[in-house]
Amino acid sequence: MVTEFELIKRFFSRPVSTGLLGGGDDCALFGVTPGLQVATSTDLLLEGRHFFSDVDPRSLGHKALAVNLSDLAAIGARPLGCLLGLGLPAIDEAWVERFAEGFYALADQHGCALIGGDTTRSLQGITLSVTVFGEVEPGLALRRNAAQIGDDIWVSGTLGAADIACRMLAGDIPQDASLLQATRRALEWPTPRIELGQELRAHAHAAIDVSDGLLQDLGHILAASGLGAELYESRLPIHPALMNLSKHTLPPEVLRQALLAGGDVYELCFTAAPAQRAQLEIIGKALGLTLSCIGSVRAESGLFVYDEARNLIQDLPKGFDHFRI
Amino acid sequence: MVTEFELIKRFFSRPVSTGLLGGGDDCALFGVTPGLQVATSTDLLLEGRHFFSDVDPRSLGHKALAVNLSDLAAIGARPLGCLLGLGLPAIDEAWVERFAEGFYALADQHGCALIGGDTTRSLQGITLSVTVFGEVEPGLALRRNAAQIGDDIWVSGTLGAADIACRMLAGDIPQDASLLQATRRALEWPTPRIELGQELRAHAHAAIDVSDGLLQDLGHILAASGLGAELYESRLPIHPALMNLSKHTLPPEVLRQALLAGGDVYELCFTAAPAQRAQLEIIGKALGLTLSCIGSVRAESGLFVYDEARNLIQDLPKGFDHFRI
Repeated sequence: MVTEFELIKRFFSRPVSTGLLGGGDDCALFGVTPGLQVATSTDLLLEGRHFFSDVDPRSLGHKALAVNLSDLAAIGARPLGCLLGLGLPAIDEAWVERFAEGFYALADQHGCALIGGDTTRSLQGITLSVTVFGEVEPGLALRRNAAQIGDDIWVSGTLGAADIACRMLAGDIPQDASLLQATRRALEWPTPRIELGQELRAHAHAAIDVSDGLLQDLGHILAASGLGAELYESRLPIHPALMNLSKHTLPPEVLRQALLAGGDVYELCFTAAPAQRAQLEIIGKALGLTLSCIGSVRAESGLFVYDEARNLIQDLPKGFDHFRI
Repeated sequence: MVTEFELIKRFFSRPVSTGLLGGGDDCALFGVTPGLQVATSTDLLLEGRHFFSDVDPRSLGHKALAVNLSDLAAIGARPLGCLLGLGLPAIDEAWVERFAEGFYALADQHGCALIGGDTTRSLQGITLSVTVFGEVEPGLALRRNAAQIGDDIWVSGTLGAADIACRMLAGDIPQDASLLQATRRALEWPTPRIELGQELRAHAHAAIDVSDGLLQDLGHILAASGLGAELYESRLPIHPALMNLSKHTLPPEVLRQALLAGGDVYELCFTAAPAQRAQLEIIGKALGLTLSCIGSVRAESGLFVYDEARNLIQDLPKGFDHFRI
């Protein structure tokens, strides 16, 4: 039988760059560029709650790191390294190998070395804990509380697909095979917007990554900044797979819920002065990433969303709460 | 019903020192003394595996942080801050309040601010993930691979009590009420040896904290250093509660197992040149902490333990493996 130490040696002991002490000592060590601050974030992912038991382990390895890198992106930090805590009911070597593949592929892409962690047997389901470190100039970190009155509100990429895929897989809405195929990648292989976050340090005021739903996450920016906002539904960037579907396949209220309150998006929502529009369009083009201006920040508190006919939507869908659902 | 955000606000939002961005943004930020490296470690603690379901939540909060601080101690790092991942089946506010009390009391004692984390509902048991950060001079970190031939082998504090308490609570050995009372504190309230670790930077070669059992953890130092060692059972610092007990209450083989292979100790095991003995005794006295020289490092590989009669012990107890048991 494979022991904890063999597991680490076989699957989680790739060499790391000089100056970093990889797994195998009591602590991992890493250096920080003098004058910069360390940005760090941690996420707990539990089987049956944050991922389905039969998920492809490669995509799970990718996503476990991606959701953490997304937090570095939201603050504009450059990734330095990460730690992985892994609780497994039993060691299925093929599963662990594929999980490690997905994890390392994304880590390599962002120069985010796996420098340490913890493995243990779980008596319940699979338990994942990932912690990431990055570095950022003290004055340039993108904070939630820095939105300004009159700022444009932007969101990167598209909205809605991850929520629709998740709800079909969970059985909340009827499964449509071609729609599931077209949306599943958004749920299982989210792209952390690290490069965008780096660029935004010089152009945006406040930023957050959309993990719990656009309304709820933008709400955090507004609450922290003591401001309100108005959004225009017609400007929301709908995922292509959700366009031009019959009402039977995708009822309008389900689409609205997915766009405004669907979680697991990992796009950046940020605010910037209108004077930055031209520059932001250049950045979007350079990154091959759609950036959509969806509304604006205003002094009056509250979050107001207007539909296609410019009528105020009265019953906004509720956001995601980790304890409520 | 209490939501995730209310939970964080009520129990985990104490103010942190200037320059640190506490919970509530996508990342926590902290500064590092220029020229120093960041040391980091993470541990996953799962209900039913690393703690009993009915454990006092204050002691659990203490221990979840203590086992991580112990890793900083083992490398000689000064604590900077920590992150907490908390997965709960339901929110029992009294439980969370007591958990937070135990966690913060130890964090305050070591100036290790809770700067961020993640909370989620767990469909299974209580899941804890703690990550700590410290800083250390690049050349002074105590590494596992730095033991030298002829080094003394030292251990701080005493051995055996946590293992005996754990085995009584688990029903592995018969429960004795007074013995349980006298040993339980060692299991539930371990003391991370942060100050000792700081002192050892200038005096020790290699160090590790004893989490999986003395033989196994010392074995990691020896394997990393490519060396062997001899230990003398008569020199092991037995916890006072385990002394002078009848064979009926504590059979000799159970005591030997507890001393040599018992986990959850969180004392430091370290190696140092014999020339350091006088200095180490001064350090021990200054800290009010017994430091015991229990053997020495030798060139020949293997770990040899001699009993009171100076006979080699043939059947050494097995260490702890997170997947084996």
